[in-house]
Amino acid sequence: MTSFTLSKFLAFMLHSKLIHPKNIVVVGGSDNIHSPGGRVLKNLIDHQFKGELFAVNPKQEKVQGIISYKDINDIPEVDLAIIAISAKFVLETVKVLTQQKNTKGFIIFSAGFSEKDENGEKLENEIVELIEEAGGSLLGPNNIGLINKHYTGVFTTPIPKLDEKGVDFVSGSGATAVFIIEAAQSMGLTFSSIYTVGNSAQIGVEEILEYLDHSFEKGISSKVKLLYIESIKNPLKFLKHTASLIQKGCKIAAIKAGSSEAGNRAASSHTGAIANSDVFVDTLFQKAGIIRCYGRNELISVAGILLQKESKGKNIAIITHAGGPAVMLTDVLSKNGLKIPHLEGKDSEALLEQLFDGSSVSNPIDFLATGTAQQLVNIIEFCENSCPEIDAMAVIFGSPGLRSVDDVYEVLDEKIRTSKKPIYAILPSVVNVKKQIREFIKKGNIAFNDEVLFGNALAKVYNHTPVSNKAKDPDSKLSKKIRKLIDALPNGYMSTEPAVTLLEYAGVKFATPYNVNNEAELNNVSKSLSYPVVLKVEGPLHKSDVGGVILNVSTEEELYDSFHKLMQIEGAVSVIIQPMINGTELFIGAKKETNYPHVILCGLGGIFVEVLKDISAAMIPLSDEDALKMINDLKAYPILKGVRGQSGINIKLFSEAILSISNLLSLVPEIAELDINPLMATESDLTAVDVRIRLEK
Amino acid sequence: MTSFTLSKFLAFMLHSKLIHPKNIVVVGGSDNIHSPGGRVLKNLIDHQFKGELFAVNPKQEKVQGIISYKDINDIPEVDLAIIAISAKFVLETVKVLTQQKNTKGFIIFSAGFSEKDENGEKLENEIVELIEEAGGSLLGPNNIGLINKHYTGVFTTPIPKLDEKGVDFVSGSGATAVFIIEAAQSMGLTFSSIYTVGNSAQIGVEEILEYLDHSFEKGISSKVKLLYIESIKNPLKFLKHTASLIQKGCKIAAIKAGSSEAGNRAASSHTGAIANSDVFVDTLFQKAGIIRCYGRNELISVAGILLQKESKGKNIAIITHAGGPAVMLTDVLSKNGLKIPHLEGKDSEALLEQLFDGSSVSNPIDFLATGTAQQLVNIIEFCENSCPEIDAMAVIFGSPGLRSVDDVYEVLDEKIRTSKKPIYAILPSVVNVKKQIREFIKKGNIAFNDEVLFGNALAKVYNHTPVSNKAKDPDSKLSKKIRKLIDALPNGYMSTEPAVTLLEYAGVKFATPYNVNNEAELNNVSKSLSYPVVLKVEGPLHKSDVGGVILNVSTEEELYDSFHKLMQIEGAVSVIIQPMINGTELFIGAKKETNYPHVILCGLGGIFVEVLKDISAAMIPLSDEDALKMINDLKAYPILKGVRGQSGINIKLFSEAILSISNLLSLVPEIAELDINPLMATESDLTAVDVRIRLEK
Repeated sequence: MTSFTLSKFLAFMLHSKLIHPKNIVVVGGSDNIHSPGGRVLKNLIDHQFKGELFAVNPKQEKVQGIISYKDINDIPEVDLAIIAISAKFVLETVKVLTQQKNTKGFIIFSAGFSEKDENGEKLENEIVELIEEAGGSLLGPNNIGLINKHYTGVFTTPIPKLDEKGVDFVSGSGATAVFIIEAAQSMGLTFSSIYTVGNSAQIGVEEILEYLDHSFEKGISSKVKLLYIESIKNPLKFLKHTASLIQKGCKIAAIKAGSSEAGNRAASSHTGAIANSDVFVDTLFQKAGIIRCYGRNELISVAGILLQKESKGKNIAIITHAGGPAVMLTDVLSKNGLKIPHLEGKDSEALLEQLFDGSSVSNPIDFLATGTAQQLVNIIEFCENSCPEIDAMAVIFGSPGLRSVDDVYEVLDEKIRTSKKPIYAILPSVVNVKKQIREFIKKGNIAFNDEVLFGNALAKVYNHTPVSNKAKDPDSKLSKKIRKLIDALPNGYMSTEPAVTLLEYAGVKFATPYNVNNEAELNNVSKSLSYPVVLKVEGPLHKSDVGGVILNVSTEEELYDSFHKLMQIEGAVSVIIQPMINGTELFIGAKKETNYPHVILCGLGGIFVEVLKDISAAMIPLSDEDALKMINDLKAYPILKGVRGQSGINIKLFSEAILSISNLLSLVPEIAELDINPLMATESDLTAVDVRIRLEK
Repeated sequence: MTSFTLSKFLAFMLHSKLIHPKNIVVVGGSDNIHSPGGRVLKNLIDHQFKGELFAVNPKQEKVQGIISYKDINDIPEVDLAIIAISAKFVLETVKVLTQQKNTKGFIIFSAGFSEKDENGEKLENEIVELIEEAGGSLLGPNNIGLINKHYTGVFTTPIPKLDEKGVDFVSGSGATAVFIIEAAQSMGLTFSSIYTVGNSAQIGVEEILEYLDHSFEKGISSKVKLLYIESIKNPLKFLKHTASLIQKGCKIAAIKAGSSEAGNRAASSHTGAIANSDVFVDTLFQKAGIIRCYGRNELISVAGILLQKESKGKNIAIITHAGGPAVMLTDVLSKNGLKIPHLEGKDSEALLEQLFDGSSVSNPIDFLATGTAQQLVNIIEFCENSCPEIDAMAVIFGSPGLRSVDDVYEVLDEKIRTSKKPIYAILPSVVNVKKQIREFIKKGNIAFNDEVLFGNALAKVYNHTPVSNKAKDPDSKLSKKIRKLIDALPNGYMSTEPAVTLLEYAGVKFATPYNVNNEAELNNVSKSLSYPVVLKVEGPLHKSDVGGVILNVSTEEELYDSFHKLMQIEGAVSVIIQPMINGTELFIGAKKETNYPHVILCGLGGIFVEVLKDISAAMIPLSDEDALKMINDLKAYPILKGVRGQSGINIKLFSEAILSISNLLSLVPEIAELDINPLMATESDLTAVDVRIRLEK
């Protein structure tokens, strides 16, 4: 590896001096803590950066008690520069730092670059070039910075509580990061690190993920990652590192904003983000094993659950002193497929005797407004030790303002730490026992405040099943045959013959088509036909719209009539004759979008796709299990299996066809669109009847 | 009206002395503000009850500075008694109050009544009897009390800000009421009155609604009502008064907890509430025009929107200084059918010039982190005056901690008050500008903090369309014929003949059935048949399961064979012969649950019901529009209309059949279940082929 490619390689990694600098200069540091430069300096000082810290400020020799240089040329060598000056001065500053000061880490707060206009983009590119030449790393520009255990390099407040078991949080938007940190505070969510990427000029979310993946140390690194993303520039890199982190035992929850059409427009008008249509994001997340969230509250609620012990199952005990919230929580959990098992038996009766008259232990366990801390101990120990049917507990305990809850929250704190089953605390009295909730959080606990928002998040986490099915590589002999065929074809829609050959190579059976150009050929073909057959015009793209499909042709006379009729259609080149096949109509489709792997779609044909939008989607390559899961996830699955005495289809053949198409797509990235519609399925057979494939080389 | 029935009548109303007492005694009042009796006294004193206030306490002559009597017998006459003593002493106390002290208003905090056991229930009934004999009104027992503009009769904290334009809130659960009041505080939601009904021994949610309905004064009373309900004992009364309030211009949002099966169990184990299956609640709310909510956060978010100006349409401008939240809000609104119209044109360009470089005005309107208060003025005035395509604005404005937002929030406050279009404030910086948000709220504003939770609530409100279609009364001649038929029938499943007659009376065409008991009758019938026909065995309940249906019988020979085969089935009484009818399979069904009007269901037959659960439901009586809406709401509606060149069905005939059934059900409350399945529909015809009706007299 030459030094140039090495530097190139390093340039895309996060330089260690960006992560763990021995010294930091704040260019634009000042006494004004209402400016980014002044505030980041204050944050670094307040949160005890352990290295050397200095500033560059043209007017002062000391700012906030630390040394300040009037000229960037005068500073000593420095690992990391945090730059908070007007955009127009940044390039010159970076030049001095990279070329004279051996600086490798850069955080640029300044706005006015690619997010603004073309000139800004040019300037941004020049800065990146300088930094890459020097083998450095740039976070920003137009971001709010970075917080980790080594330093507090952000110009915003509040600075959250840092904890190496807290979440690692990567954000594509600085303001959203701040609002998430603020909302997290009242819940007790702690952070291990926070990265904001701004314009992602050099380091984007993907590169942070790569760093988190490579630097992950089992037992030491935090296992929960949160992402707020507006664009994914490099889906494959994103997939590689998120999937790898999840393989290592991490949990990742993410918001990808801009998922609606109007939202895409909003995202595009924001940081120059490129819009990705939503099914690609959904299937990418699915493939990686990421839990997709749609709002800040949901994201931090999910994180609050992920930070706690893992549950072995979906059976929840709801413990409360107030009926209403328990009923609402029961409703939301049940509706989302979690279980609230009815509890009974000897131990349950013994527990009931320890509670006040009128209590209920059948689950929800209601120990009344007058319930005591000792009763809560008994209840939790009952669920922990005597209820194998219970996997986790949710305790709802507020206060109408009469009694102290200190003893109850102390019990909760202790039991959360010591019990094997996860215990979630829902503390709704955000006014009456505000102080006690704060105390509870200070001990390292998470406090949810709305049982229904919590319940939705819990269901999202508990229902999430990351897939780890390995797809098999397609056969290499097959690969060569297919490659030869594709390379010989032009761009655009393939005609029927090569498309059918391609499907047959891939392993999908097609209803033998005869391509008939003239009456002489028809004479020839007609001898080997068994009726009924279907005739389709070749040439026009939308055959049905021009009356180009004639079904159920049963006699030789009809055959000739139909042939002549079709050949008279404008643009008709030839006629395809196929056997008429009966069965249930299925379809398999595929789409490609820049930089993403193909998404493969499947479903029942006809009204199920057109009216009911009943479609499963997954990103290639698929494993056997993935293909089966796609079929299983269809709402119409019972129809495929056979319902009401009606026979179903052969699901194995359908899933094999999906797999075959997945393999084909892996081998031919040039396929921009593919549509097999319909495939006719019976209990014993599966035959494709029509196919459209568009190549984009 | 005799005095007894008058007192009975009054007993079910809220006595004016409960609402507006001139004097109040707190039985069990003490110096201990951690007890219910002590706390309610403190609340009454702190919040300046204007009448005379005294206590009953066996140990003291003064409590909290007011006169206290040692014996209930010694007190003067008193309008309202708030009772906070042990359950066992309550009956005696009530006896003295009703019989000697002319007391008409009662609030009983004490627990240990019907929610506990049978003895408690008996005691509760005796208390109610005493109070009803005296023509008084009882709130509770086992509740937290009542707050209105006259007094603060609750033993809990916090006491919310009262405002006659705030919400009227009725809660079936005291603790839930407290948690809702607490959560509402940080949003700025104000209350006009709060009622908690506890065990609803005499006054339940329905009676409070009746009171709110009767006492409603246009222009004076609050127009927003919130309900938290665990059971609806009297659905017709509930419907009458909620619908009436909504007719008068009110908006009602409600949680009905216990909507899942497990949730129903939880509700039942709570305050002895009776579980109602969820479709009855859904259709009841629909009929009344109530917005159904599922959690505390959702309820207060919806209330926060309802308290603001009404929007003329669904087109929202999103105004922000931070891209991320605007993108997420755009996503959630678009997904829920609201519009974020793209803004362009001369005025939009003029606005852009007033903003900093890099801003965007295309909607979302992003005026950047550096955006000023004056720019916000310009943007809001642009949306208010120059954008007829905009109906409402959502302003998202937080703070990363550098700048003051006072000026911006002042602009917001002023514009919310003065602009014609509603403006919603989403203020996400709950830590950085906590104080400023509090100030903003103090001025009477609502502040949302999570754009996605807000967006979901906004969509719920904007998509809610209360129906005000009047159902026509069924024909009285029809009524007599039907009544005669029904009165002659026993309980249980009706046999085919009277069921068909009933349908025909109601106006639903039935495929003429011949009931054939023996071969002689068959000889007779066979002459008038036109083939193909269908034969169904009469006798066994589930005909298909015993092979009791033979389709497509085309010849006389087949007819006789089939007849003999069916008559050999166990339990066979006779055979029904009908013409074989083709078309699309539809179904109409109906269910009854204690105290509720019938719910009527419709949909496509076959897999659409069995696999896809595609069913519309509504509560009778239906109007023309209601019946059409039911059909329109089906996911399969495009199939009924005709899709992909396939002809649809006659929707007018289908909706008329639904209406006919609705009329029938109004006339025959004894119908417990009704199932017309299938009805065969074509473009020109609709014929019922099978029907099952169960009577429960």
